Amino acid sequence: MRPSGRNLAQMRPISIETGVMRHAEGSCLIKCGDTHVLCTATIEDNPPRFLKGTGLGWVTAEYGMLPRATNTRNRREAAQGKQSGRTQEIQRLIGRSLRAGIDRSALGERQISIDCDVIQADGGTRCASITGGWVALRLAVNKLLKAGAISGDPILDHVAAVSCGIYAGQPLLDLDYAEDSEAGTDGNFVLTGAGRLIEVQMSAEGATFSRDEMGRLLDLAEAGMADLVTAQKAAVA
Amino acid sequence: MRPSGRNLAQMRPISIETGVMRHAEGSCLIKCGDTHVLCTATIEDNPPRFLKGTGLGWVTAEYGMLPRATNTRNRREAAQGKQSGRTQEIQRLIGRSLRAGIDRSALGERQISIDCDVIQADGGTRCASITGGWVALRLAVNKLLKAGAISGDPILDHVAAVSCGIYAGQPLLDLDYAEDSEAGTDGNFVLTGAGRLIEVQMSAEGATFSRDEMGRLLDLAEAGMADLVTAQKAAVA
Amino acid sequence: MRPSGRNLAQMRPISIETGVMRHAEGSCLIKCGDTHVLCTATIEDNPPRFLKGTGLGWVTAEYGMLPRATNTRNRREAAQGKQSGRTQEIQRLIGRSLRAGIDRSALGERQISIDCDVIQADGGTRCASITGGWVALRLAVNKLLKAGAISGDPILDHVAAVSCGIYAGQPLLDLDYAEDSEAGTDGNFVLTGAGRLIEVQMSAEGATFSRDEMGRLLDLAEAGMADLVTAQKAAVA
Amino acid sequence: MRPSGRNLAQMRPISIETGVMRHAEGSCLIKCGDTHVLCTATIEDNPPRFLKGTGLGWVTAEYGMLPRATNTRNRREAAQGKQSGRTQEIQRLIGRSLRAGIDRSALGERQISIDCDVIQADGGTRCASITGGWVALRLAVNKLLKAGAISGDPILDHVAAVSCGIYAGQPLLDLDYAEDSEAGTDGNFVLTGAGRLIEVQMSAEGATFSRDEMGRLLDLAEAGMADLVTAQKAAVA
Amino acid sequence: MRPSGRNLAQMRPISIETGVMRHAEGSCLIKCGDTHVLCTATIEDNPPRFLKGTGLGWVTAEYGMLPRATNTRNRREAAQGKQSGRTQEIQRLIGRSLRAGIDRSALGERQISIDCDVIQADGGTRCASITGGWVALRLAVNKLLKAGAISGDPILDHVAAVSCGIYAGQPLLDLDYAEDSEAGTDGNFVLTGAGRLIEVQMSAEGATFSRDEMGRLLDLAEAGMADLVTAQKAAVA
Amino acid sequence: MRPSGRNLAQMRPISIETGVMRHAEGSCLIKCGDTHVLCTATIEDNPPRFLKGTGLGWVTAEYGMLPRATNTRNRREAAQGKQSGRTQEIQRLIGRSLRAGIDRSALGERQISIDCDVIQADGGTRCASITGGWVALRLAVNKLLKAGAISGDPILDHVAAVSCGIYAGQPLLDLDYAEDSEAGTDGNFVLTGAGRLIEVQMSAEGATFSRDEMGRLLDLAEAGMADLVTAQKAAVA
Repeated sequence: MRPSGRNLAQMRPISIETGVMRHAEGSCLIKCGDTHVLCTATIEDNPPRFLKGTGLGWVTAEYGMLPRATNTRNRREAAQGKQSGRTQEIQRLIGRSLRAGIDRSALGERQISIDCDVIQADGGTRCASITGGWVALRLAVNKLLKAGAISGDPILDHVAAVSCGIYAGQPLLDLDYAEDSEAGTDGNFVLTGAGRLIEVQMSAEGATFSRDEMGRLLDLAEAGMADLVTAQKAAVA
Repeated sequence: MRPSGRNLAQMRPISIETGVMRHAEGSCLIKCGDTHVLCTATIEDNPPRFLKGTGLGWVTAEYGMLPRATNTRNRREAAQGKQSGRTQEIQRLIGRSLRAGIDRSALGERQISIDCDVIQADGGTRCASITGGWVALRLAVNKLLKAGAISGDPILDHVAAVSCGIYAGQPLLDLDYAEDSEAGTDGNFVLTGAGRLIEVQMSAEGATFSRDEMGRLLDLAEAGMADLVTAQKAAVA
Repeated sequence: MRPSGRNLAQMRPISIETGVMRHAEGSCLIKCGDTHVLCTATIEDNPPRFLKGTGLGWVTAEYGMLPRATNTRNRREAAQGKQSGRTQEIQRLIGRSLRAGIDRSALGERQISIDCDVIQADGGTRCASITGGWVALRLAVNKLLKAGAISGDPILDHVAAVSCGIYAGQPLLDLDYAEDSEAGTDGNFVLTGAGRLIEVQMSAEGATFSRDEMGRLLDLAEAGMADLVTAQKAAVA
Repeated sequence: MRPSGRNLAQMRPISIETGVMRHAEGSCLIKCGDTHVLCTATIEDNPPRFLKGTGLGWVTAEYGMLPRATNTRNRREAAQGKQSGRTQEIQRLIGRSLRAGIDRSALGERQISIDCDVIQADGGTRCASITGGWVALRLAVNKLLKAGAISGDPILDHVAAVSCGIYAGQPLLDLDYAEDSEAGTDGNFVLTGAGRLIEVQMSAEGATFSRDEMGRLLDLAEAGMADLVTAQKAAVA
Repeated sequence: MRPSGRNLAQMRPISIETGVMRHAEGSCLIKCGDTHVLCTATIEDNPPRFLKGTGLGWVTAEYGMLPRATNTRNRREAAQGKQSGRTQEIQRLIGRSLRAGIDRSALGERQISIDCDVIQADGGTRCASITGGWVALRLAVNKLLKAGAISGDPILDHVAAVSCGIYAGQPLLDLDYAEDSEAGTDGNFVLTGAGRLIEVQMSAEGATFSRDEMGRLLDLAEAGMADLVTAQKAAVA
Repeated sequence: MRPSGRNLAQMRPISIETGVMRHAEGSCLIKCGDTHVLCTATIEDNPPRFLKGTGLGWVTAEYGMLPRATNTRNRREAAQGKQSGRTQEIQRLIGRSLRAGIDRSALGERQISIDCDVIQADGGTRCASITGGWVALRLAVNKLLKAGAISGDPILDHVAAVSCGIYAGQPLLDLDYAEDSEAGTDGNFVLTGAGRLIEVQMSAEGATFSRDEMGRLLDLAEAGMADLVTAQKAAVA
């Protein structure tokens, strides 16, 4: 009954290809069905000023979308002269989520910048960005560890994200664009590998929701996490 | 044990003064403790282009903060030449929340703009903006009804918001700035008068959280809603 | 015969409430009839670069207007991405006027920023900003004096401002919006408590004017100053 | 005793060369001593929207300065991405002053844009812009009259401007840059050929001033006007 | 003797994979060695205003580069709020080059937008963008022809581009980044399939050049074109 | 047969007046027919950061056009808030061309900024800017030499530029605007006094071109250089 033909609790196929960018300290191309995001991690030479003398590191993120990632061409933000509110909201979410999974003092006074560029969009781009962004971060941190630049692993656990929503009265896992457009309630869930919550963002897009519905979406998200963490593990192995 | 000395489940004093702006179709000054937000509703003469021919209305919101609303002066966004990501995120939330409480077809092809300007900030400004913004919206809609511009009431229910968080391991209701800065987990909850959920936004700011903790924060938010709706009712009576 | 019903030389009621902003070093809400401006003074921690090594201080000002301060909603400058020419002209005037009333070397190498935000507008907002801005400045300087941060008082005299204009051939004091819109000649006068002139800005808005008319407007302005200085004195007492 | 060696009431040599721009409907290069401004008038094909249906015309102005018009290079505003507050203030003044000298209904529903570009600056650029801008406007209007596009002359009188100031206690006419930098009080005066006032802008730049001093500056300005109008007459003859 | 180990007249391996973007009317991923550019063609629904009533079509282009396409991260143009001069120069070149290969009247009143996004950069990104952009354009035009939207083929010939340069006194074909950085003279050549010239851009980057050297670079470019056209033909077959 | 009535290989009259700007270290007004460009050279006090410690100098350029330099008024870039792609492309070309004619180590760690402002445009403004910019640069360097700030002359040779194009099948030298608009192929050539090439930029604007045609345009450009260098020599003598 889903537009996509999937079962209610069925994720789209996930693939994560690493090492796709020759220059980046960490990179991957994550595909969640037809949503494809290129994620890179850059270890910044000059730590930002607010870190000076704190002994703490920082992880930040930027998000972009190619103009023809979508069904109709969206205007290039660089040409428009600013990032949209949506873009800023998403990149703040990615950065916040990934920071929740690291020990900033073990990272030391350096910044890792995660760039998430959506090559093709079919719903769930912010979730794919977090899941793929974590892989890029993991690979960059591995490089620091291998080079002896840091002694302890600052990464505390996996961080991944998935969207769920209520469509035609049914809770669905991992919405694609067609499902997302019709969903009355929409949620993004960021979790750790151990199942702890990092971010929960639920919105009534057309229909308010109950605590019970919220719980059912969270059940789905927890189930979906297993697949995401498995894919992350395979990718960074 | 709270920095503010309040009980864990105790809201700050709420006051909502209406009719504070001579020109606006609806206005109020909402005070949640030391957080003061001026909210106005403007009925727009020219509906935005995307409404033309749809028979549907729109509610949108803008958010700002006076430079010295905070402890140290924050730079004026107009002088900087752009709204911050935080500002855009908040104003998108306010608009989405208020739209969830109206019947867009009963509103007809017109737009109501809600301006929320923080005069003084002590935590919870986005929640106060939603709660006060609803009052301004209600008053503007009353004017339309009284003038016979619309026949049925497009407002479906009260909409209000409150923040909760986990501080020193305890769930707290209605965080002030000092509490918010120290909270490991932070949540904003937008609900209807009937207790349905509109938005849930929880973030691990330093510490991940469990489903159980999430439930306890939601319990607090539901309890706090009673006070907010009571204050809204008194204000628009 | 004035639209407002006032006598030609009659000021609007003036009220200045101080201490309205919890965080600012000095603050007031000034009301000149239906024109309400919130003024705050911030003592800046880091003096601007051009002061370094000069031993001199600086007073600067920024001006803003809430979108619904006016009869029809004006677009938010932060959302438009720039301050209008009018805004910049006004904030330059406020800063210049207040600097004319201080001894920059007695202030020492620090900057005081005055923010004037128009909550409600009914003509004369730049004049109210100067009059109220001086009160905020006075209160902030008092704090410096009390804390022993400076030894001598850098404030030389009161600074206040009032507008006058020629309406239907008659010189009027303290124009409200309706009068201002119809005035053929329009003037803003900034004076010291001792009656010295700081700024005179007269414009032919529709009708040129003579030296004699200019003199009559200046007479009115001088008369109005008495009320303004009285109100300032009461406020800072 | 003036740095320039001129008498207190002596203007700098004025020259106005017309027809210097091949494409413009009216143009001149005005030189007031070492201040050189190129002024052009453009009759706009498409009147701005706010004129539609009013039967009234509009005169507007833009002001710019070449980067090396001044002693040290000033940054190009186009490269900085915005016009400074000073630039906007000046171009608003030029437009307002020239509009005060025309009958907008005789001009008809068209806009004339005056561009004033400072080639070389030595004080008084805004005044030279107004005086030269009027010449460009006059020539463009002559073209409209000659072509029969309008039947009556919309120009009511000459409009010209001069600065005066108090330097070392003495009132001086037509300040150059060195004098202007040291003047305690500074004024710009826009007058008609008949001696009516259009704009008076006096500022205490370091020292407050009295009504008497203001009167003496105005005396000087009135005297200077004679030379400016003579030069304008010769130029447009 | 080349840093890359290639012969002087040897191109890098070229691969062009088409149909890589699900939504675009035409798309390819072109790889010229380690330079990878994603090119899409979008047929615009609303032709730009300047085409209205002309019966002519338009081809335009935009260019971007992912932040970590390069060895060190370059700042995201969307975050900086503007496209660099280099970006604008390149996208103007791409558009001009592709337009030179079409019959604008056969295309009819529609616009095709070519987006060229550099995924990985190793020199020659503008040339790869032109070569790949032509493939995307060809595929989009094929769609129009197949759908019967146009009757005659507006594409006149292949358009492709290659860079050449003088390195250590030797003319080299198809410079990679290391070679380009050291080349004294640098050229970009855009040609048609028939060998006609569309653009020649040669620059002395460190060393001026002679007509003879220019001729030798052009010889190389003509030779390289054969490979590019072969790759284009294979891709669109 | 040329619209201008000139012979195919005939340059427009060239005049270069130096010392036209009182403040600049070097300046000239160059006139190539009706194209008039004001060029100034500024020796920058603070060398840009990237020069620090290199011992090398830099020459950079900015380009602008007065709004009414052209037949119809073009919008002021400062008012629009950005420089167009065309402007940026031109100023990058000017800077690159002039740098090719200097020995950066003989210049020492300083920057010379060349400003080229088009007062009147009739085709070939970028070429006139380069030719005139070199004169301003030469004069500024002379000042450095005379002051003993540098010991050896960093200027290696003359640098000048001219445009050529194919019009109605004929190669023409030094296109004016009317010719340029109709030319099928368009080229800009920057050469040294000794006839070495610095930049060649040829574009098919409507018609592709052959190597033979390119050669004929280059022949014309070389011929035209003689006149330009003669004019430069006379100007700086």
